[in-house]
Amino acid sequence: MKKLHIIWAHPRQDSLTAQTVEAITKEALQRGFEVSSWEAYSAKFNPLVQEEDEPDWHNPNKKYSDEAIELANELTDKDYLVFVFPVWWYSLPAILKGYIDRVWNYGVFYGNRELDKLPVKAVRWIGLIGSDQAHIQKRDYDRYMLHYFNIGLAGYCGIEDSKVKLIYDTIGRKVTDPIPYYEGLINQAIEFVRELPK
Amino acid sequence: MKKLHIIWAHPRQDSLTAQTVEAITKEALQRGFEVSSWEAYSAKFNPLVQEEDEPDWHNPNKKYSDEAIELANELTDKDYLVFVFPVWWYSLPAILKGYIDRVWNYGVFYGNRELDKLPVKAVRWIGLIGSDQAHIQKRDYDRYMLHYFNIGLAGYCGIEDSKVKLIYDTIGRKVTDPIPYYEGLINQAIEFVRELPK
Repeated sequence: MKKLHIIWAHPRQDSLTAQTVEAITKEALQRGFEVSSWEAYSAKFNPLVQEEDEPDWHNPNKKYSDEAIELANELTDKDYLVFVFPVWWYSLPAILKGYIDRVWNYGVFYGNRELDKLPVKAVRWIGLIGSDQAHIQKRDYDRYMLHYFNIGLAGYCGIEDSKVKLIYDTIGRKVTDPIPYYEGLINQAIEFVRELPK
Repeated sequence: MKKLHIIWAHPRQDSLTAQTVEAITKEALQRGFEVSSWEAYSAKFNPLVQEEDEPDWHNPNKKYSDEAIELANELTDKDYLVFVFPVWWYSLPAILKGYIDRVWNYGVFYGNRELDKLPVKAVRWIGLIGSDQAHIQKRDYDRYMLHYFNIGLAGYCGIEDSKVKLIYDTIGRKVTDPIPYYEGLINQAIEFVRELPK
């Protein structure tokens, strides 16, 4: 049975991000996956690197903070890691940037030893974007985000199988019939997760 | 007299980032600038967007949190804005990403009205990078960072005069004579700030 772990963040419980997480959880369970999740806001995660979580490139055995170690350990038995988040300033919300800063550390998920890599088979990134695709493409941000998430983050931690799904028009568009409209957006996430091998 | 405001962040007070801020402050004062600064860690800044700081694209007059308004107001009489930070994961530390997320808001520093722009003449970004330039260039991250800071952040807020200085090799290189070595790194920042017109 494949284990899928969802890491996500949104300050509102009624957000489209939350609804997306609910929908992909259901889809993954229907496929027979074991599903777990972690929401950074409700976990009261502190995204600030302090000295104890600064990487020490001269010491791959540095002991980081208990919280960072614990969150890293949550991934050790997982097959798939799925991030779900609102795209703010073409990137992760600060709280998830801080998750990467603190938890994906040197000697843990990257480094010079064979074991220094993310312990999952694949990473998926689902970013919800308020504006439309043309607005993002005009300045080449779709390509940059793919590069950043796939190569800069997952790739740096040894994961080649990383894919990004950007879901556009979550806010900007005037919607006359909201229920099917938002279902359509959420379906994009469901179909993206459906591609993960059983 | 030109007013220069420094926004910076580092968890350690003895960091190279802190020394860089000290050096460029001295340089700016010598040039006759009025200098102010804000360090996100010591200000105990909370980088988490909550509902009150979520942008409302349908209401450019939304009243954001007091902290966000106050930090935005700090920039209204400034000529130059200089960011100084360690580059973590090819980007801002989470605490400064949260500063952008919360303070550079819709109807404040971007939007559809003439006044919705950053109220400064120029922005400068000084990023301190542990690794060497070849490592960063190999995957095109130098170009990515320039695009992100200049176009994605400053440009989006209406500032065309935005420049980035990346200072490499702050950690990775073995240094036999540290004092002149780190002085050399800090000098790169001083020279970058020296180019700002009086």
